Amino acid sequence: MSSAVESKSDLENQTVYFRCIAGCSAKHSIFDVIYTCPSCGSLLEVYHEREPLRKRNPYQWQQLFDSRASTSDWPYGSGVWGMREWVIPALADENVVSMFEGNSNLFWAERLGRQLGVPDLWIKLCGNSHTGSFKDLGMTVLVSVVKQMMAQGSPVKAVACASTGDTSAALAAYAAYAGIPAVIFLPAGKVSTAQLIQPVANGAHVLALDTDFDGCMKIVQEVTQDNSIYLANSMNSLRIEGQKTVGIEIVRQFDWEVPDWIVIPVGNLGNISALHKGFRLMLDLGLINRMPRLVAAQAAKANPFYESYKNGFKEKVRVTAQDTLANAIRIGDPVSYAKAERAIVETDGIVEQATEDELAAAAAHADLTGMFTCPHTGVALAVLNKLIKRGVIKSDDKTVVISTAHGLKFTDFKVAYHESRLDEVTSQYANPAVHLPADADAVKAEIEKRLAH
Amino acid sequence: MSSAVESKSDLENQTVYFRCIAGCSAKHSIFDVIYTCPSCGSLLEVYHEREPLRKRNPYQWQQLFDSRASTSDWPYGSGVWGMREWVIPALADENVVSMFEGNSNLFWAERLGRQLGVPDLWIKLCGNSHTGSFKDLGMTVLVSVVKQMMAQGSPVKAVACASTGDTSAALAAYAAYAGIPAVIFLPAGKVSTAQLIQPVANGAHVLALDTDFDGCMKIVQEVTQDNSIYLANSMNSLRIEGQKTVGIEIVRQFDWEVPDWIVIPVGNLGNISALHKGFRLMLDLGLINRMPRLVAAQAAKANPFYESYKNGFKEKVRVTAQDTLANAIRIGDPVSYAKAERAIVETDGIVEQATEDELAAAAAHADLTGMFTCPHTGVALAVLNKLIKRGVIKSDDKTVVISTAHGLKFTDFKVAYHESRLDEVTSQYANPAVHLPADADAVKAEIEKRLAH
Repeated sequence: MSSAVESKSDLENQTVYFRCIAGCSAKHSIFDVIYTCPSCGSLLEVYHEREPLRKRNPYQWQQLFDSRASTSDWPYGSGVWGMREWVIPALADENVVSMFEGNSNLFWAERLGRQLGVPDLWIKLCGNSHTGSFKDLGMTVLVSVVKQMMAQGSPVKAVACASTGDTSAALAAYAAYAGIPAVIFLPAGKVSTAQLIQPVANGAHVLALDTDFDGCMKIVQEVTQDNSIYLANSMNSLRIEGQKTVGIEIVRQFDWEVPDWIVIPVGNLGNISALHKGFRLMLDLGLINRMPRLVAAQAAKANPFYESYKNGFKEKVRVTAQDTLANAIRIGDPVSYAKAERAIVETDGIVEQATEDELAAAAAHADLTGMFTCPHTGVALAVLNKLIKRGVIKSDDKTVVISTAHGLKFTDFKVAYHESRLDEVTSQYANPAVHLPADADAVKAEIEKRLAH
Repeated sequence: MSSAVESKSDLENQTVYFRCIAGCSAKHSIFDVIYTCPSCGSLLEVYHEREPLRKRNPYQWQQLFDSRASTSDWPYGSGVWGMREWVIPALADENVVSMFEGNSNLFWAERLGRQLGVPDLWIKLCGNSHTGSFKDLGMTVLVSVVKQMMAQGSPVKAVACASTGDTSAALAAYAAYAGIPAVIFLPAGKVSTAQLIQPVANGAHVLALDTDFDGCMKIVQEVTQDNSIYLANSMNSLRIEGQKTVGIEIVRQFDWEVPDWIVIPVGNLGNISALHKGFRLMLDLGLINRMPRLVAAQAAKANPFYESYKNGFKEKVRVTAQDTLANAIRIGDPVSYAKAERAIVETDGIVEQATEDELAAAAAHADLTGMFTCPHTGVALAVLNKLIKRGVIKSDDKTVVISTAHGLKFTDFKVAYHESRLDEVTSQYANPAVHLPADADAVKAEIEKRLAH
């Protein structure tokens, strides 16, 4: 498990390293092929010692990050690598694999906010990105680290994941850009070319195995025992380092003002863990002086974290996830549970859920104000609405909703909604085309009727 | 046709106004409902008098635009409104309808460039945007001007277009954001909900008429005679003002260095006209000292501009456009012909075409280096390849390809390609999933075989 090039004493001098989230004392190099604590099996996290980061004062950090955002000064124009010192400082320039991720629009949802009763409403459109989801933020970090491992003589020859969604799309694209082979494992016969078209187009090796998803994971573990393939699954803690920049970027986009609430759709719980990690770092270094309250939004069909929250986090609940329109968060046994629990507890956060009908309605309603929301964003918006109605989120609270993917990845969902074909959903905002004769008077009359409303 | 509020003398003091591209002398307010020259019927263009713009020197303009790009200083963070003085200076703050358009990634196509023999290759990813195409750049301007017209008491009550593609998607989204009704006209029975899902979701009034596309245009003209509906079709010259910022932005992203070549896929020819207009303005004001050579890339199935170029622009050629994978540029009689001819002539430009097989291969090949290209970008990349092979574009030329839309809008095209189902196309880069037993040794052997290549 030790790095090919880094000696023990090198590691002791490092101020950024993997450590066990359960408290085991060993440090591990982030350039090692290691996913969990060798002592206790818990997840790892990349830890940044605070002292070296205090060499700049809070204002200097803000100035630095402001000055780099979106510039052509490669790689600092990237929303992730503009915060390089807080991400993976030991990465060499030539190993950064960046496609200008981050700096996504913090959409001012002016009309929607007025309609919902929270005028200071903002939607962070993470899906306006290279592969269409927030996963780009994490993959730029993971693939960059792998590139450096390979340059340093590690046995790693390829990256891999067992995924059929945004994770495989982002992994395949970043690997293709870097020229590193990517392998995608999935159960045979259950996934169409359309669902996989991003990794297929990006030249990933797509292996369909005659087994179910658990069977795939078993094979993956056997195949990767010799460390020749680096696993990009969600237990990998490197991706969190990129994803954590989203919270820092939101605050930067507000000129370093902390919003009152951030609502985020959650499944495996990596994203809320990352969000919290970014805020924690800002707070520790004095860039902010309070936490926002984090709201984890779950689909009612796959709500283990909501159930855990209801029992006061006395124990981790596992459920059998049911089919949901919000299929990217269809998770019954979330990997990053412990980190996410900390995120909710430390921010006085809330976990809430939304039904299929609620999430579909919230997405369709938001679209009427110019967005094109994915179903997961629908979950977050439905939860937002509940908390407003319950009086928890107040009318003058500054509120951010994280939109995790571009709606263009979910056109089937939107078509089915507007054709009123979704199970358990009443398509109250359906907007089908109206059929008219080719007659100017009839057309005029129809338009006048519609504009009168 | 005169503005509701602007008097004749107001107009005479304006330094930004509509004028006839054929040289008729009248000025028209950009806040008038007017699309073509009342004297001769030619297209209009927004003209910016140069003298008032010389109050800043070239360096000051560069500094100003650099300082605004992507910042949270609304609306200047937008790639369009960061150049506000060069776009529509008379627009009031409260009428700007912006969704942070522009500032799209100027993708460094390092691997692809090396493979093609032009290492200094860049792809301007205009499709990484709110509605997934470059049309956002123009629609933010058009809808903002309409908002101001309405605020000033114009009879305009809605915006409209006859389109089934990116134009209707962008119009509907910007109108929805502004709270202005949008009407989309289209022939009944020829367009699916899926093709129209963006305007449908954004709440546009979608009217399917019992006629063909020409019949729709006739009805539209009758219905809009009283100026109550503002037409956003491609003859509208306001959109060009937003679209022209793409060229300025490219040069800004190169720290004000002019690339040698810009290759752009063209149909109705508005986009290349806009590109040229932005460069012309920079040249006139001294921000650059030479033009890039512009290359217009056409699909061979819809190539009137290519045919015109071949006859030395002696006359405008019209063709019957045939079905092409590049359906957004399937135009037989381009609206902006005269402006585009000027763009090619003034930049020592080139027009070239690509077959279905060439465009599909170029798109699939580019995807292998991390992109997710739409078929129109495929046309541009195929043309690039031809000009490299012909020795016209040289190995050390700095070359930019404009990618007009996100590949997520064209997953059907990509799926069909990788399933080898496209007419007239040999899917030489098809990358179907491979089916394997759930056996670690078999999986290892397959991976080793593939990584050996």
